[in-house]
Amino acid sequence: MIPKSINFEGKLAKFSDHWSPKIIAEMNDYQFKLVKIQGEFVWHKHDETDEVFIVIDGEMSIHFRDGTVDLSTGEMVVVPKGVEHMPIAELECKIMTIEPAGTLNTGDAGGDRTVEDLPWI
Amino acid sequence: MIPKSINFEGKLAKFSDHWSPKIIAEMNDYQFKLVKIQGEFVWHKHDETDEVFIVIDGEMSIHFRDGTVDLSTGEMVVVPKGVEHMPIAELECKIMTIEPAGTLNTGDAGGDRTVEDLPWI
Repeated sequence: MIPKSINFEGKLAKFSDHWSPKIIAEMNDYQFKLVKIQGEFVWHKHDETDEVFIVIDGEMSIHFRDGTVDLSTGEMVVVPKGVEHMPIAELECKIMTIEPAGTLNTGDAGGDRTVEDLPWI
Repeated sequence: MIPKSINFEGKLAKFSDHWSPKIIAEMNDYQFKLVKIQGEFVWHKHDETDEVFIVIDGEMSIHFRDGTVDLSTGEMVVVPKGVEHMPIAELECKIMTIEPAGTLNTGDAGGDRTVEDLPWI
């Protein structure tokens, strides 16, 4: 049995909702998730882990308490554990996040934008 | 202090050698490495960890003992731990690998294509 290739564009065509991560791959105990984002998310942090954002298509920013990182297609950033951040995108942006399985999208903030039991696509 | 964005194209412009991974980011104890590949690599496996390949620009294949996975720009694959594989690219292909820090490019095979002490770029 050989592993399957995973096509980002093909996977992104399978959903249209925003801020609702879909799992596309697992490496050891880490998960790769595709997300479409638009508008503001919530301020939060992950006390136990760093988090990677990779922009697949579009533009987004991540606000920190002491500055902002702008990201475009073909760029990534590592948000260190314990650091408060707030992702935002004016227009729809397609991103991939990488973090340990079980990491919640809203981190310590919780609330009604938390998505549990993420689907595989 | 806020984290820096990492631009794949900009980082790839910083080197031209083949099969010589450069570290661009760390997430917990994992490293993100850019590599330019062309030709055949060596058959090897990593007994302790899965390994992710993401194609940034180009086309490559990964041979397994029982089949081949073809990958193009915007595609990824997870090679399961312990599974023998051999990356190959007819033309130069630019890829990113993700694996635990300290994982050697030649895995259990060793030999003169092993690169230790990877540089950060």
